[in-house]
Amino acid sequence: MNVAFLSIGDELLIGKTINTNASWLGEKLSAIGFDIHCVETISDNRCQIISSLNRLISENNVVIITGGLGPTNDDITKHVLCEIFDTELEFNQQAYDGMARYVLARNQEINDKNLTQAQFPKKATFVPNPCGTASGMWFEKDSSVIVSLPGVPHEMKAIMLESVIPWLKNRFELPAIFHRHVLVSEIAESKLAETISDWEAQLPEQIHLAYLPSPGIVKLRMSCVAENEAKAHELVEKEEAKLKNIIAPYIWGYDDDTIEEVVGKLLLKYNATVSTAESCTGGNISRMLTRISGSSAYYYGSVISYDNSVKIKELNVNPKDIEQHGVVSEQVVKTMATEIRKKIGTTYGIATSGIAGPTGGSEEKPVGTVWIAVASEKNIVAKKFLFGKERDTNIEKATVSALRMLQQLILQEHLA
Amino acid sequence: MNVAFLSIGDELLIGKTINTNASWLGEKLSAIGFDIHCVETISDNRCQIISSLNRLISENNVVIITGGLGPTNDDITKHVLCEIFDTELEFNQQAYDGMARYVLARNQEINDKNLTQAQFPKKATFVPNPCGTASGMWFEKDSSVIVSLPGVPHEMKAIMLESVIPWLKNRFELPAIFHRHVLVSEIAESKLAETISDWEAQLPEQIHLAYLPSPGIVKLRMSCVAENEAKAHELVEKEEAKLKNIIAPYIWGYDDDTIEEVVGKLLLKYNATVSTAESCTGGNISRMLTRISGSSAYYYGSVISYDNSVKIKELNVNPKDIEQHGVVSEQVVKTMATEIRKKIGTTYGIATSGIAGPTGGSEEKPVGTVWIAVASEKNIVAKKFLFGKERDTNIEKATVSALRMLQQLILQEHLA
Repeated sequence: MNVAFLSIGDELLIGKTINTNASWLGEKLSAIGFDIHCVETISDNRCQIISSLNRLISENNVVIITGGLGPTNDDITKHVLCEIFDTELEFNQQAYDGMARYVLARNQEINDKNLTQAQFPKKATFVPNPCGTASGMWFEKDSSVIVSLPGVPHEMKAIMLESVIPWLKNRFELPAIFHRHVLVSEIAESKLAETISDWEAQLPEQIHLAYLPSPGIVKLRMSCVAENEAKAHELVEKEEAKLKNIIAPYIWGYDDDTIEEVVGKLLLKYNATVSTAESCTGGNISRMLTRISGSSAYYYGSVISYDNSVKIKELNVNPKDIEQHGVVSEQVVKTMATEIRKKIGTTYGIATSGIAGPTGGSEEKPVGTVWIAVASEKNIVAKKFLFGKERDTNIEKATVSALRMLQQLILQEHLA
Repeated sequence: MNVAFLSIGDELLIGKTINTNASWLGEKLSAIGFDIHCVETISDNRCQIISSLNRLISENNVVIITGGLGPTNDDITKHVLCEIFDTELEFNQQAYDGMARYVLARNQEINDKNLTQAQFPKKATFVPNPCGTASGMWFEKDSSVIVSLPGVPHEMKAIMLESVIPWLKNRFELPAIFHRHVLVSEIAESKLAETISDWEAQLPEQIHLAYLPSPGIVKLRMSCVAENEAKAHELVEKEEAKLKNIIAPYIWGYDDDTIEEVVGKLLLKYNATVSTAESCTGGNISRMLTRISGSSAYYYGSVISYDNSVKIKELNVNPKDIEQHGVVSEQVVKTMATEIRKKIGTTYGIATSGIAGPTGGSEEKPVGTVWIAVASEKNIVAKKFLFGKERDTNIEKATVSALRMLQQLILQEHLA
């Protein structure tokens, strides 16, 4: 089954916005067995929309259109779709209700521009948008399905997950495909590839392996196509068991796990709590922990001690330690981790201090040097890392490493 | 002059890699006056490459192809290009020298795969690659230019900047184009569109307006094509002045400004410093501020007071205020903002307390309710916001709003 994505919007063409919608859609739809045939991006231009869409419909079973549905004047997709599908706009009660519910919940007034969003093509099926005012539209033509969605990423994703993906699964007979992600850290991609090369070589041909790296993390994806889901599942499970024998110490999660979720669940399970004392990560660890709804049960608070005065005054760091060992040192992060858990009154304390870059490095401590400590009542662990030259990536890698160190300490204390 | 980008690679289609090449190319080529007509992504498939490329050549003055030039077996672009341009591969000394220089500089040996990279289409012009082993190729057909480049972003960018962009400027007579972005917050896209509809209606036809929304922010982009750059600049400036008369209070920046940069520069300018006391934003404000290299000059630290005990103990919030007004209240954020600036010793203090969601709301204080306060020695401002249902977006919007409130207070205190 072929699917194509058509993204509409000048902001994508001139590079002001990166087309993350296409990659998200590609991941989700290939995961349920669609072949992603092509991705096209064009401008809000009638002729171009007509010509691209007609061609894509003739070549694909499904076309997903994103963008061009906002209330402003440069958004013309809806009118052009009426032209292509030989239909017209009419007032649609579901579209009106969806828009009104959203607007009124925000204590805003429904204005004329909003009202145009209740106009809906006669021949389309209404697709609800739980996160915005523009509804999705589902058309059928020559046995192809064409879906038009707003371009705002969180709206598009919500509509896909809630309606479009389940509907597509019903509408088409897709091959049984099973994906399993094994999430690994503390080992570089090339070293990992070397370590598991024998295992990789013996994989049955139905299983395809891919390496998906991101800062501090490598995802290993096994994809298996088989006669049915149970068979695909079974094949992958067998290989996963072998893989675990080789790289168990590096595995911290599976599939859609995130490190902040994995750590959060462990803290909940053992009725434990955490606080952070962050320098180079600048609040990124606390931000990651608090992205999870319900994190207030185990995350209590932080001191972001960017300036040394804050480290000394709020975290009892000894100025002599800073003078003697530097602020990026084992002594300093150990004090920070110990003091923050006492100050906030939590089971665990995390601390970071490093040179995020791009400036501030020295021969002895180059850009990318980060010390991280994790403390509990009985234990304290500190590690030195040498990441790269790029500020954002260093902050991300330090955050992942700190959460991973916490995970290891919790497991060590409870499984020993 | 129309240009199209053709990206080749399965990893782009299935979402494993985000197509940042296309956005970079779009920005660079629209800035020099090309119209970006479309972006297409397809797989390493002979038929698909031939059909897409022939169509794109017939519709565009320039086609830039990225990807499919590596030494591995699934990269077939070079062979397909020979087929399309009716030519064949031959040994090319420049291509060999470029590859050899790169390989030998890294103390590696030239292997068989590298040698295939010295094979080059007879009819193509050699385009040097300063950062890798695969040369670029420049073809001409029916007065169109077709350029094929490697897909690795830093190689593609280096070749474009060093050769392709200067060559294209020579080859085509391009119009003068000028883009201006006006960055706005505290007003919804639909309300903004309504407010400026008269101004929009009277814009000269050379100026095209676009709305680019992201959480908490709308970018208004004016693009103007004119006989020369000075004229385009002048036309936009005139309209910008009128726009400012209408929406001045909502404007916080221009072009590539980010709110954390704008605030950082203001703090530097007035020799001022800031600290944050964050509850619902969970460290995201400090993270944003510290993403900027050099932020240690004006950002000192934070207390992330997620748990009420931390608000009471570290920020002197009165438990009676929490009991009487709730933790999401004007009283609580005002105390937090006042206390954090005293505690950390900074000019300004920012505080947030809200219900990020998706759970935790009540009738009186629904999900999305956020109180934000900004304090200086003499002033304190607090505002209540009602954002949406989505946790991530609420955190982002609260962060933007808090930084924007700080910007306004700084300006008010220094420009009054």
